[in-house]
Amino acid sequence: MASPVLPSSGVLSPLGLDAVRLAPGFWGDRVRLNREVVIAHCREWMEKEGWIGNFRGALPRRGREFSDSEIYKLLEAMAWADHPALPGLAATVAAAQEDDGYLNTRWSRARYTDLEWGHELYCHGYLIQAGVARLRTHGEDELTRAARRAADHVCRRFAGGGEVCGHPEIEMALVELYRATGAERYLELAAGFVARRGGPALAEIPFGRAYFQDDLPVRQAPVLRGHAVRALYLAAGAVDVAVETGDRGLLEAVEAQWERTVAARTHLTGGMGSRRTDESFGDDFELPPDRAYAETCAGIASIMLAHRLHLATGKVRYAELAERTLYNVLATALALDGRSFFYANPLQVRVPAEPPAGVNHSAEGGLRSAWFDVSCCPNNIARTLASFAAYVATSDADGVQIHHPAAGEIRHGGLVLRVETGYPWSGGVVVRVVSGGAGRISLRVPAWAEGAVVARTGPADPRPRSAPPGYVALDGPWRAGDEIRLDLPMTPRWTFPDPRIDALRGTAAVERGPLVYCAESVGDRPDLAGLTARLAPPVEHVADGVVELEIRASSRPPAGAGWPYGPERRDAGDGEETAVRLVPYHRWGNRGPAAMRVWLPA
Amino acid sequence: MASPVLPSSGVLSPLGLDAVRLAPGFWGDRVRLNREVVIAHCREWMEKEGWIGNFRGALPRRGREFSDSEIYKLLEAMAWADHPALPGLAATVAAAQEDDGYLNTRWSRARYTDLEWGHELYCHGYLIQAGVARLRTHGEDELTRAARRAADHVCRRFAGGGEVCGHPEIEMALVELYRATGAERYLELAAGFVARRGGPALAEIPFGRAYFQDDLPVRQAPVLRGHAVRALYLAAGAVDVAVETGDRGLLEAVEAQWERTVAARTHLTGGMGSRRTDESFGDDFELPPDRAYAETCAGIASIMLAHRLHLATGKVRYAELAERTLYNVLATALALDGRSFFYANPLQVRVPAEPPAGVNHSAEGGLRSAWFDVSCCPNNIARTLASFAAYVATSDADGVQIHHPAAGEIRHGGLVLRVETGYPWSGGVVVRVVSGGAGRISLRVPAWAEGAVVARTGPADPRPRSAPPGYVALDGPWRAGDEIRLDLPMTPRWTFPDPRIDALRGTAAVERGPLVYCAESVGDRPDLAGLTARLAPPVEHVADGVVELEIRASSRPPAGAGWPYGPERRDAGDGEETAVRLVPYHRWGNRGPAAMRVWLPA
Repeated sequence: MASPVLPSSGVLSPLGLDAVRLAPGFWGDRVRLNREVVIAHCREWMEKEGWIGNFRGALPRRGREFSDSEIYKLLEAMAWADHPALPGLAATVAAAQEDDGYLNTRWSRARYTDLEWGHELYCHGYLIQAGVARLRTHGEDELTRAARRAADHVCRRFAGGGEVCGHPEIEMALVELYRATGAERYLELAAGFVARRGGPALAEIPFGRAYFQDDLPVRQAPVLRGHAVRALYLAAGAVDVAVETGDRGLLEAVEAQWERTVAARTHLTGGMGSRRTDESFGDDFELPPDRAYAETCAGIASIMLAHRLHLATGKVRYAELAERTLYNVLATALALDGRSFFYANPLQVRVPAEPPAGVNHSAEGGLRSAWFDVSCCPNNIARTLASFAAYVATSDADGVQIHHPAAGEIRHGGLVLRVETGYPWSGGVVVRVVSGGAGRISLRVPAWAEGAVVARTGPADPRPRSAPPGYVALDGPWRAGDEIRLDLPMTPRWTFPDPRIDALRGTAAVERGPLVYCAESVGDRPDLAGLTARLAPPVEHVADGVVELEIRASSRPPAGAGWPYGPERRDAGDGEETAVRLVPYHRWGNRGPAAMRVWLPA
Repeated sequence: MASPVLPSSGVLSPLGLDAVRLAPGFWGDRVRLNREVVIAHCREWMEKEGWIGNFRGALPRRGREFSDSEIYKLLEAMAWADHPALPGLAATVAAAQEDDGYLNTRWSRARYTDLEWGHELYCHGYLIQAGVARLRTHGEDELTRAARRAADHVCRRFAGGGEVCGHPEIEMALVELYRATGAERYLELAAGFVARRGGPALAEIPFGRAYFQDDLPVRQAPVLRGHAVRALYLAAGAVDVAVETGDRGLLEAVEAQWERTVAARTHLTGGMGSRRTDESFGDDFELPPDRAYAETCAGIASIMLAHRLHLATGKVRYAELAERTLYNVLATALALDGRSFFYANPLQVRVPAEPPAGVNHSAEGGLRSAWFDVSCCPNNIARTLASFAAYVATSDADGVQIHHPAAGEIRHGGLVLRVETGYPWSGGVVVRVVSGGAGRISLRVPAWAEGAVVARTGPADPRPRSAPPGYVALDGPWRAGDEIRLDLPMTPRWTFPDPRIDALRGTAAVERGPLVYCAESVGDRPDLAGLTARLAPPVEHVADGVVELEIRASSRPPAGAGWPYGPERRDAGDGEETAVRLVPYHRWGNRGPAAMRVWLPA
């Protein structure tokens, strides 16, 4: 089945990409943009930067030590999107593979001499993921053969001993290849990599072993820590291993880690990671809006982890966080034109700025960049959007579950459902039965949607009824023409932070539906430094199909210079009252250099 | 004269180190600890780490590309302290110098091939500073000859063209050598280095040219920016050049940059630098307490800059900031036993932790470390404490000025003054005339010391009079036995932040005299996460000569887990009232792993 994650057991089962076809709408438009623009954009830049040329043996080798993985991420995107450029790029890659299956353009003459930083298993993992995607969408070909040869090489080299890779990823890849092929050696090695970690298995590094989660065994760790992408990839791989080996203890350990991470180490947007120096989580409640790192790839990794935990347990909390992260990290990272990307997704930018022209050599810049020295994020967005449909719905023995309202068509058994919705701008979701059948249809009702109402046509129960947060289930049988209408209240709401988050004391943010909003100043209007929000209900304005929100705020021009600490308590409060337009956070930075803030003094 | 900075003009003139002799007391004790413990500690670690061995040609070379400079900083400290180990270490250094004066153990076979990162002029600069210190305390010897040969080599190599060093430092060194020798080529090259910068003169780097202040010419920059130590060293060098060349415009430009930096980019402690990734200032009002970098060397550099501006202009504001930084950065960075050091000086630490045993490979760690891969801070502390007396007092045509109350003896002309004080614990300062003479005696009254009173014995004016902030001046002539008594009120005070500092919203800090205080939890008592301070007057407790302060706070154990953002405004307020002991910030972290916070929710 064409799905990036296919557990052999679990509460929920994925539907294949063919079973969920997206129509125009918030996500359908982005998936199309991905196929038509983003994939080509990534390929062009990797050709231009020489990262593809590395596979042709061009000298000197160009790009960072993990650049091979970027080509593999793009190949995975191409596989899910059934992109015509895949075979040519796959042939270039396969031609560089060594006889024993090893493939790395940086390390071939010094194999596995630097497991801490070399990223060789990380790269092999992404090659395997691309192969699995191709296998599930197309069947065996040059790419899948290269991936299996790489996996077999990895098994031969690493089956014994205690080694692991500094950057987890191979664990997920091996489990998925096991799922796709049934070959147990892949699962065994993945389980071994998870078990070895924290022994410790790697050398001490200046950032400390927590950086690559080698400070504690996976099942003993209380929380996700260190480099956020590494931590989330490892946790996702551990869930995969737990599910396939029936290891309840391991699954529960990751669930507990996820709970504390969400309670104390996650930004309002779903973004994860607070420290830029080592791209790490930071301590509990260390959640600065201005220096929030919230790397795009960490957001994607969090969606991957939540999806796996959701499939395994069926708990709605995982779909909740995935939705938050999809709308406020994934959708934010990609420019509206599909040609530039955020690497970091802070919740406040004080000084409007533009990144350097051409390749951005750092992860920062004020606006989205066309390309980065480390360009994991664009390719990771490409492969995630290409497989986006996999997150929308699942099935179980009773029927089908729709987790994320997205316009399109869902097929399961004989049932064909057409979903019509203007979500996230409006809260109405209509599910029309196009082709009838048996089975329960469940719709997720988000936690913020208190007062939601569901109604159905047909004989069973024509009266609208309240749909509390969680899942609302409607039983079949279904006939063509039947209709379910779910109404989610989309009233904008003020949200306040836990008082333990020091960096957010005295502020509030506005959310509406799944979207986080922000104040954005293009140029220097309005001046965000002097605003204090009034906590009155925001007023909606619809412009070009986008809901913007107007609030009232006191605006006081910043005070003069001088030592900024003194004996009088100074509040920014009593300035002139003014209207401030808030825009969805995912749209900020599309109109040129801007200051921005999600959390407003209130 | 034995003083690290000897401008040929300016409002105030330095006194030599011989003219200010410190007695036991806050600073006298530290200067003695420096001479007896810190200098030997630094030497032992640099021997152990092989950095001194590099000068003996030991292979492979060890340490970072700038490690030579650490030996020079220590040589400077030894020179000011008249340390008996200087000649031996100087001979080791001098033996490695090449025939043309070039000296660098890392780059000798690839001279000046990486001006952005090579630090060769930075290293030469510190060698020259050490030579100047030796010249002023001892006279010509092997070290001063090596320094002059290095300076002459630098002049030959860099007099023409547009090159500069990625890390400023050579500018100050060359001006001081000009001051010490009268050779104008040194001043001319220093002026050239200052003028070339921002042309730009260096290549683009991932951090951007602002990192090493090559984005704008010095006289056009509105504020200090980029890497804090680099920015402050360059500004100090620019003041030196401005003073010696009579360049008012350049001096005024640096004064304006200093004003804005102090108003918007300085922590309460005087610490500078908010970003850890590139050790940089960050934007205006980006002053997070928990991730404050406030590098020890940036604090020292800020003291160096303030001292130069103070000598040039006589404005009290420079002495104010220097005092704040001396007591709350310099004194904090050094452990009470003189054997460990902070590299970064954050204003909040959430999780008690200990740095790795042995060499700390990063700038972080939770507690002070014995040594670092990059060990600029210990050696910089050593040279600053060894020349500490130079900051205490100055002279002008009218008499002598005492800027920092420190127990000891001050000589100027025929006048000999003995200063007796328990400052900063108590606010009484007694100046006894040991040997009489003419001239005005001025004492600085800090801005926080509203209500200060000064009195003198003797015939002139026996009644106490009020001494408003600034300088209180008392005219001579003076006879042996005359006495001046200055009483500075030391009432503890609550201090509030500018509302534009987002990271400090809703908090307050306690200061007493020049000291910033903090709550410190050793182990997990008290739990700092749940505290909300009551803004009542703190109560003093004296323990072992140290003034601690007790405040009342509401303490509520942190709430349970779950998504930390929601529709209810949650304050930490209404917990059980409890007493919390605050300790001087400079003493925190001397009792084992601890959490700490300067800014308390209030």
